[in-house]
Amino acid sequence: MRVVSRALMPVCACAPVMVGLFQRTLRLRTALRHLSPHSTFSSATTAGRPPVDLCGPFLPAPSRQSGVCCRKLHSGADGSEPSPAAAPDRRPFSRISREDLDSFRKIVPGRVVTDPDLLESSNVDWLKSVRGSSEVLLRPQTTEEVSQILKYCNGRNLALNPQGGNTGLVGGSVPVYDEIVLSTALMNNILTFDSISGILTCQAGCVLENLSGYLEERDYIMPLDLGAKGSCHIGGNVATNAGGLRLLRYGSLHGTVLGLEAVLADGRVLDCLATLRKDNTGYDLKQLFIGSEGTLGVITAVSILCPRKPKSVNVVFLGCETFDQLLKTFQLCRGMLGEILSAYEFLDSECMRLLNTHLKLPNPISDCSFYVVIETSGSDPTHDGEKLHNFLEEAMNSSLVTDGTVATEESKIKALWSMRERVTEALTHDGFTYKYDVSLPVERIYQLVTDMRQHLGGRAKSVVGYGHVGDGNLHLNITSPAKDPALLAAIEPFVYEWTAGCRGSISAEHGLGLKKRNYIYYSKPRQAVALMGDIKAMLDPKGILNPYKTLPDDLK
Amino acid sequence: MRVVSRALMPVCACAPVMVGLFQRTLRLRTALRHLSPHSTFSSATTAGRPPVDLCGPFLPAPSRQSGVCCRKLHSGADGSEPSPAAAPDRRPFSRISREDLDSFRKIVPGRVVTDPDLLESSNVDWLKSVRGSSEVLLRPQTTEEVSQILKYCNGRNLALNPQGGNTGLVGGSVPVYDEIVLSTALMNNILTFDSISGILTCQAGCVLENLSGYLEERDYIMPLDLGAKGSCHIGGNVATNAGGLRLLRYGSLHGTVLGLEAVLADGRVLDCLATLRKDNTGYDLKQLFIGSEGTLGVITAVSILCPRKPKSVNVVFLGCETFDQLLKTFQLCRGMLGEILSAYEFLDSECMRLLNTHLKLPNPISDCSFYVVIETSGSDPTHDGEKLHNFLEEAMNSSLVTDGTVATEESKIKALWSMRERVTEALTHDGFTYKYDVSLPVERIYQLVTDMRQHLGGRAKSVVGYGHVGDGNLHLNITSPAKDPALLAAIEPFVYEWTAGCRGSISAEHGLGLKKRNYIYYSKPRQAVALMGDIKAMLDPKGILNPYKTLPDDLK
Ligand SMILES: Cc1cc2nc3c(=O)[nH]c(=O)nc-3n(C[C@H](O)[C@H](O)[C@H](O)COP(=O)(O)OP(=O)(O)OC[C@H]3O[C@@H](n4cnc5c(N)ncnc54)[C@H](O)[C@@H]3O)c2cc1C
Ligand SMILES: Cc1cc2nc3c(=O)[nH]c(=O)nc-3n(C[C@H](O)[C@H](O)[C@H](O)COP(=O)(O)OP(=O)(O)OC[C@H]3O[C@@H](n4cnc5c(N)ncnc54)[C@H](O)[C@@H]3O)c2cc1C
Repeated sequence: MRVVSRALMPVCACAPVMVGLFQRTLRLRTALRHLSPHSTFSSATTAGRPPVDLCGPFLPAPSRQSGVCCRKLHSGADGSEPSPAAAPDRRPFSRISREDLDSFRKIVPGRVVTDPDLLESSNVDWLKSVRGSSEVLLRPQTTEEVSQILKYCNGRNLALNPQGGNTGLVGGSVPVYDEIVLSTALMNNILTFDSISGILTCQAGCVLENLSGYLEERDYIMPLDLGAKGSCHIGGNVATNAGGLRLLRYGSLHGTVLGLEAVLADGRVLDCLATLRKDNTGYDLKQLFIGSEGTLGVITAVSILCPRKPKSVNVVFLGCETFDQLLKTFQLCRGMLGEILSAYEFLDSECMRLLNTHLKLPNPISDCSFYVVIETSGSDPTHDGEKLHNFLEEAMNSSLVTDGTVATEESKIKALWSMRERVTEALTHDGFTYKYDVSLPVERIYQLVTDMRQHLGGRAKSVVGYGHVGDGNLHLNITSPAKDPALLAAIEPFVYEWTAGCRGSISAEHGLGLKKRNYIYYSKPRQAVALMGDIKAMLDPKGILNPYKTLPDDLK
Repeated sequence: MRVVSRALMPVCACAPVMVGLFQRTLRLRTALRHLSPHSTFSSATTAGRPPVDLCGPFLPAPSRQSGVCCRKLHSGADGSEPSPAAAPDRRPFSRISREDLDSFRKIVPGRVVTDPDLLESSNVDWLKSVRGSSEVLLRPQTTEEVSQILKYCNGRNLALNPQGGNTGLVGGSVPVYDEIVLSTALMNNILTFDSISGILTCQAGCVLENLSGYLEERDYIMPLDLGAKGSCHIGGNVATNAGGLRLLRYGSLHGTVLGLEAVLADGRVLDCLATLRKDNTGYDLKQLFIGSEGTLGVITAVSILCPRKPKSVNVVFLGCETFDQLLKTFQLCRGMLGEILSAYEFLDSECMRLLNTHLKLPNPISDCSFYVVIETSGSDPTHDGEKLHNFLEEAMNSSLVTDGTVATEESKIKALWSMRERVTEALTHDGFTYKYDVSLPVERIYQLVTDMRQHLGGRAKSVVGYGHVGDGNLHLNITSPAKDPALLAAIEPFVYEWTAGCRGSISAEHGLGLKKRNYIYYSKPRQAVALMGDIKAMLDPKGILNPYKTLPDDLK
């Protein structure tokens, strides 16, 4: 069974629990008034947050859903012009034969899945927006098996789609046509962990949350964390260069991944699995694979530098009346919280409305236009509490913040975090969602949301903004009751042009996958894209690895 | 005039100053005994350290030095077998003609240097160990000029050596034969600085120390710092993926460099100069150039994420009796100093002897086998002082540390730092130096030094170890009165085999350049090196960019 299935189980509605939690959570003003600096902000021992209900009750069971809620990206089926997100024609790869299946059964005996019911969840992406029609799922356990599979596929000109937890949001993780799915789900061994250096080496299929659990027992944490942690694989994280909630503090995977092993299209194993913080012997090849979305090689193992588990974690949930105040609060807390600041996330009042309506999560503070989740992680609970207290006092006194609440226990910390983490889920209940994940100069982040609202007038159901303010990363989401080509035409290319207009990135962390590949020129010059094409041609001359993804159609 | 010259001026001997400083510096035991936690460790406002005298009185003036102290890497001139560091035969590049010079004068009018005296410092490396015989130095000011130069050179099959501050330590920064030197010294403009995000964009020729100064005035710092800061260029830092003294805290340039602009061998300008923290639109091409040592393109501009200037900086100089104690002290301080730890550097008693003997720097504490420099940087002087106090008390009580001193003012902080930073300089006074810069599992770092001492017996003058413990990075240096091929034969390949034996890196931060290119296989498998060759061939098919460097001879 795929590891992802665990997170696909519906979780019970937690609204009553939340209400209780927040009733017991100290309100900011009270906290500031009644408690001494040293006791105001007690701290929990972990920064853990609850796994998100990745696929709540909204989503129909596989058998009922076919073709219903999948965006027909592959054709202009509704009569409109095919959008740049639509798949190009199938390339002339071979089709799988009985002999191929026999060969695969020799390479991965008992792990060649052809049952359509079992294949279903590998053919459809997390958003249920893209559906492939693969007839084979391979589940290797070792690098050697991956190597043999690729060698075989390359020889036979068979296309292949590497798949981790299948939580990707840009249609990169599922086949477009009949590409073979190569799942890393059974490559889930931890290989080594060095408790002096904090360097972890593991197979690519380890689930992020499992790695976090393993490390926390050893007084370390993973340098990345994201809402999909219960399902996503570390290999998928590296393949997408996932950002997430800790990037502000621990930086990107380009810095924290110390080594990786990848199998190239022709089956060659590239061993860059160093476990050293520093190594300047030649070009840093592993960097090529970080963020290459399965188009340059299959990542089979990763080594990563893990930070010590903070002794003290605090979470604050604040409300601001304007986005300008929210930014000023960010500047203030960068200065006053300094090295203990570990997250600065935001959601707008529209997100709060969706959380209330669809997930029955009540607003833990009074109604505001914007909400901020601030997390601190440090080594001294007293010092951290003092810093936080001073910051909050200053933020209140200077009227940057209207209301707020401080979580003082692990369960409450999780509850506050879920206000930010469950927005994605709430959106899936609101209707058909158009998702945008852009990087912008931090001071312009929210202007895109307001401009979009104005631009769309009454055409959308909801236009919401949330994301990683600290990284300049906005998630703009637009819902409508059903798929709506006219709405889409109003959103795109407007959103891309707007982003390009301030030299932003049209994909901050989700990658390009199938859906955004043709928009790459909004963020990258032609010279650069051409060079990407050269790299692809060098490493995968037949183009069998994750075809139709990441690179634009005009390259071939 | 080259910017580097500033740092090449001899600085006055600072021994008397140091003695005075240390007399006024609080001794650790006293500090612990007499001062309250809150006042014990006052803090300075910057982490600045003095520029190192890069080239003290030991080094003869250009006119006297020719051929004298340059290691004849290019030939087996002394009758011995040419070492793997020796240059291969000159490749069949064109030779510079009068017409070429005329063309260059059109591209960079008034900035084509052919005077042999002026060329001297560009032909010889900082260690005076490699000498080229270039007859032309070009000093472009703009990316467009660099592009035109490369286009011309590529068309004419003229080889070219990009050069920054020429402080590289592996013979990569100077020509081997008659390659044209392209200096970035006049490309020294800061382009933009965003005081909200802390993102700096500048031309590649900006001197690191100048950037630091610029940023400190704006309450930010550079994420990297190294002894050569007064001369090295940010472009050279990125081209070598320099590590340095802040890597422990702020991570490598693969994480902090957000964008770069490079000119490819054929003159194409690759614009990856994003100023965004997150951008997952296609492959991260800039990563290829970080650490490529001028062999894949000329870096013309860089954008980099800069941390806030810490409000509080403390430096402690400690002595340990055994390396095991030094490692235990590291573990202790990682736990107790946590997020404020910004450096953990070490030197051994042999380094101290050289500092005493050659630079007249007195030991600020009593004689020990090992010395540690610990730096903290944080946002709250009181909190930092308390953390440091508690750590030191624990380290003393558990007898991990024998003696120590705490610097309480900026000038004293600088003085303590110079004990670590000036070791490189002290070595140049001790004799001919064989330099090794290796990454090892942290617990094995010093074993290489003791094994080497034992292995060499009395053959070397000094065998010293120092470096960045926090990063697992040892600088092993071996001196002898003069160049000594027999000694070299005893050191190599012993040192490389030893390092490879524990899966270390034979070049942690200095790169491979000319000297170490053929040793790459000790740290990288053949598959990986072959792929590096493919990348080189793709980006620079004629091989005109920094030939004979980084990649091993057997690739061609
Ligand atoms: C609720 C939710 C929250 C999310 N939050 C964030 C967030 O905060 N930040 C963020 O950056 N992303 C976020 N994401 C999207 C993110 O891309 C994925 O969650 C994750 O990084 C993908 O991992 P995966 O194992 O599921 O990969 P998949 O979805 O299976 O695959 C993603 C891509 O990587 C490739 N791939 C997967 N494994 C390998 C491998 N071993 N070798 C080569 N290629 C491979 C696939 O071919 C595909 O192109 C979120 C997604 C969800 C559903
Ligand atoms: C006293 C001293 C202390 C040092 N300390 C450290 C340390 O702590 N950590 C560390 O990592 N290193 C250290 N170094 C070595 C380090 O490599 C350099 O100091 C620095 O990074 C090189 O910068 P530079 O501008 O001097 O480059 P150069 O020496 O001029 O060049 C180095 C290499 O980069 C290439 N190059 C330079 N500029 C460009 C460009 N614009 N585009 C493309 N290629 C280019 C050159 O061709 C060459 O291969 C030290 C050196 C000295 C002398």
